[in-house]
Amino acid sequence: MQTLDAIQRRLGYRFRRVRLLEQALSHPSAVPNSPFERYEFLGDAVLDAVVAILLFKRHPDRNEAYLTNLKSAYVTRSMLEAVAARLRLTETCVCGQTTSVRPDDLLEAVIGAIFLDGGWKHAGAFICRHILSRRARPLVDHKTLLYTAARRRYGTDPQYTVARVTGPHHIRTFHVEARIPGLRRVGRGADSTRKAAELRAARDLLRKLPSRSGGRNRGTKKTVL
Amino acid sequence: MQTLDAIQRRLGYRFRRVRLLEQALSHPSAVPNSPFERYEFLGDAVLDAVVAILLFKRHPDRNEAYLTNLKSAYVTRSMLEAVAARLRLTETCVCGQTTSVRPDDLLEAVIGAIFLDGGWKHAGAFICRHILSRRARPLVDHKTLLYTAARRRYGTDPQYTVARVTGPHHIRTFHVEARIPGLRRVGRGADSTRKAAELRAARDLLRKLPSRSGGRNRGTKKTVL
Repeated sequence: MQTLDAIQRRLGYRFRRVRLLEQALSHPSAVPNSPFERYEFLGDAVLDAVVAILLFKRHPDRNEAYLTNLKSAYVTRSMLEAVAARLRLTETCVCGQTTSVRPDDLLEAVIGAIFLDGGWKHAGAFICRHILSRRARPLVDHKTLLYTAARRRYGTDPQYTVARVTGPHHIRTFHVEARIPGLRRVGRGADSTRKAAELRAARDLLRKLPSRSGGRNRGTKKTVL
Repeated sequence: MQTLDAIQRRLGYRFRRVRLLEQALSHPSAVPNSPFERYEFLGDAVLDAVVAILLFKRHPDRNEAYLTNLKSAYVTRSMLEAVAARLRLTETCVCGQTTSVRPDDLLEAVIGAIFLDGGWKHAGAFICRHILSRRARPLVDHKTLLYTAARRRYGTDPQYTVARVTGPHHIRTFHVEARIPGLRRVGRGADSTRKAAELRAARDLLRKLPSRSGGRNRGTKKTVL
């Protein structure tokens, strides 16, 4: 592990109780009783709240749907992975030799530790500096759009199936197909999580629906945003 | 609407800016530009964070899975509906004649307003007093358990279909069936939301799986909790 001093410089936060930082960087695969996952649980909730509050203040004229979609973009796995990579968290983490710790989990554990050490003020400052300073576009929830379209037009629910999973365990790719029962068209999407792949498949199927839906979906999208 | 004074007494919180409370109780169906839904967005995130932090402190020896399941129990729709009913929020709300506002949404909007008025301190006190003072048991996520069992034993994903929806719009009941492709057994569940009905159907199907799974599921359940 690099010196805790160097890590704190990168984080832009100096711990009063540096033990908390050590714990947040100690994965249970190497340190069995580490509170890593408890810190991750805490960090996840703190992150969500800070992002929600800041977006609420930053966009006084936007509606709830816009705020929800923009918040999703900021707490999405790929965003957190990018931030964790920039902070080089993975190389500072102590974990078992055969384990690869998810960078987004590490970032959440670090946020949990900062919150325990410095409260809302410092956790908020950290999240603003490293996450909310980035540019993000509202994530449209294509699964919800497809669900609405399928129920309204076909009176049924879309179905998602994992067609196949490729790659080794820690960098798996899920290939998902979305279908509306009774309709021959298939939407396809692939991503590192099943949920993200489902969203892509839903978006793909929405594009392939007959034109009435195409127009309506573009309309819905604008309304949502 | 009852006097704002009476409502604040029931809430146990006196607003410095009582306008915020009025807004939280004004549904867009009656007051078109009401920030009701924005407050609900904020309250949802604040509620989640407060519950997470308090449970983290209250259960220093519990793991992340226990905390997650217990948090789910405290922020579940039925819990929030019970609290909203006790505070008689629905009868204090201004909404369109044909609209029925969901009591849990109202409660979240009120929490958002308290946070805007009094910050973490007063929002936290309100949530402790009215929500975390109640008894709750960790909610086991049966969909995750079924997903794990289906992938491990059958190499496939469970599928959920809405068999039918009964009741008028605002008190609909979803009847869901859970299946594992290739298996004849069907799990059935009904509830007021699709997600809750899926959880019940998953639990039902888990119980009906051949005994190897039954034993293993009971084991998993203990571990999860």
